[in-house]
Amino acid sequence: MTEQRPGEQTVGELGEFALIDAIAARLAKSSTETVSVGIGDDSAVVSAKGGNVVACLDMLTQGVHFRLDWSEAKDIGRKAAAQNLADIFAMGATPTALLVGLALPADTPVSWVMGLADGLSEEAALVGVTVVGGDIVRGDSIAISVTALGELGERTAILRSGAKPGNVLALAGRLGFAQAGFLMLSRGFRSPRVLVGAHRVPEPPYELVRLATHATSMIDISDGLVADLGHIAKASGVSINIKTSEFEIPEPLAAAASAFNGNALEWILTGGEDHAFAATFNNALDVPSGWTIIGLVESGESVVTVDGETYSGKGWDHFSSN
Amino acid sequence: MTEQRPGEQTVGELGEFALIDAIAARLAKSSTETVSVGIGDDSAVVSAKGGNVVACLDMLTQGVHFRLDWSEAKDIGRKAAAQNLADIFAMGATPTALLVGLALPADTPVSWVMGLADGLSEEAALVGVTVVGGDIVRGDSIAISVTALGELGERTAILRSGAKPGNVLALAGRLGFAQAGFLMLSRGFRSPRVLVGAHRVPEPPYELVRLATHATSMIDISDGLVADLGHIAKASGVSINIKTSEFEIPEPLAAAASAFNGNALEWILTGGEDHAFAATFNNALDVPSGWTIIGLVESGESVVTVDGETYSGKGWDHFSSN
Repeated sequence: MTEQRPGEQTVGELGEFALIDAIAARLAKSSTETVSVGIGDDSAVVSAKGGNVVACLDMLTQGVHFRLDWSEAKDIGRKAAAQNLADIFAMGATPTALLVGLALPADTPVSWVMGLADGLSEEAALVGVTVVGGDIVRGDSIAISVTALGELGERTAILRSGAKPGNVLALAGRLGFAQAGFLMLSRGFRSPRVLVGAHRVPEPPYELVRLATHATSMIDISDGLVADLGHIAKASGVSINIKTSEFEIPEPLAAAASAFNGNALEWILTGGEDHAFAATFNNALDVPSGWTIIGLVESGESVVTVDGETYSGKGWDHFSSN
Repeated sequence: MTEQRPGEQTVGELGEFALIDAIAARLAKSSTETVSVGIGDDSAVVSAKGGNVVACLDMLTQGVHFRLDWSEAKDIGRKAAAQNLADIFAMGATPTALLVGLALPADTPVSWVMGLADGLSEEAALVGVTVVGGDIVRGDSIAISVTALGELGERTAILRSGAKPGNVLALAGRLGFAQAGFLMLSRGFRSPRVLVGAHRVPEPPYELVRLATHATSMIDISDGLVADLGHIAKASGVSINIKTSEFEIPEPLAAAASAFNGNALEWILTGGEDHAFAATFNNALDVPSGWTIIGLVESGESVVTVDGETYSGKGWDHFSSN
């Protein structure tokens, strides 16, 4: 652990149960309306109005999803929560709770874990939920597993399979920022702050995604726009054409691309981890305020094209090193 | 990875998406009545009859919860599923689904991951559920995160806090077997099979726990009987007295204790990971068939006693090395 200072208490010294108590004391209190049983029993009991639960699980590992010298513990906690909450919203559901699993080396400073808990709690609080359970174990390196739960009430889940030819494709949120920030950090820079910060803590547009009640399909952009739209194209049996003329290159991306001989449009089309949302709608009138129309759904063979052409850029494969 | 053979395909070679497809193809099909959206969307959608979901998360890490030279991948998968399913049953709930997160080194053989998936799927099938989602990422060592979901229907959750003075304490399932098996393996032995097997794959008594509908409190024994009853004593504000005269020492434990100068009763009282269930009931008539009465709930200061005395044995702390 690069952050350990002499004399600082480690999780091995504190012990598993005291560590759980310390984390639990630090988390935001849950709403009793949503959480009838929180931390402290064999399982949590959380509301699932409508009689179904929406659930997802993401893992983040040290060295792959975060570096301890690039990100504060709190930022890592926020990122871990954000990417899971985004997956709940992408179903048209409302998050209800998080469960968190931590594998930690015994020499991990307790203060680092408290920072992580703060980040998880703060991000969850943005959408009115909290951590209701989890597990802490010893591991050779840090691994964080977050499960998010959500409910639909009387609504129907918005799936990847609902896009139809003639639908419009729309986007909410930033793209390419996290990728550009990652490149800046990779080259030893700590700025520009808006890009580096986007790598550390994504900002899924929680308010905008709640408005997409009439989406015919929706997805959270975690692996890159082209790659993730490929999942909608495949599940829906349609072709999706992205029109780059609809993109304004945000100034920070343009500046970074210029300074580093990069391609801002490529970052937008292939950069992952911003957790924007792409959705299809029957027509432009259904597209909520704050969303941008960026393309069209067409009939065809489950491909994603950019300005009518196949795009050679790649998304993120966790086992490749691109 | 000790198991990799020359020429064997690794997860790094196969890639993340192909690996997920290969796992998904291998898993048991889900019941459409319970699982309306499974693997392949941003989140899963699973039934939660009664309008609440019961949820828990456990992590297992290489070297701490399993060793690749002691356990087959399939056994590790079964263990990971079993310990989470037990936490759902311990709430008086019925499991509905699992989500699984895997952190894997890129050189992990694909065959190992397929074995793990088989184990998860087989254990889940014992209680009629399957894996409905998850995540696979690269990590320095193997970490497995399992979230189990369950539903209560019209029932009320059975909590740790419901034990009352005068209740009887009862047990379903084996204790001490996993601990004894761990000791055998630690000393280089691969037998007796019933003990070593209990370390590799716990056998929570799924059929018996379903019968405990009148329990006033219940817990899954994962850290040791005395340690876990301590959670009930604390949550309920009662004292619990275990009567060792009610225990018959099972023959395999007696034989192993004799051969290794061990203490079978200590294994029973403190051994973790068997995933037996302890529950309290208003009276002996409420105790289901197949459960054994092993003690009594008394008024007092949240302590667990053994034959009326404080017990010095310890349970399992994941950061300690006892």
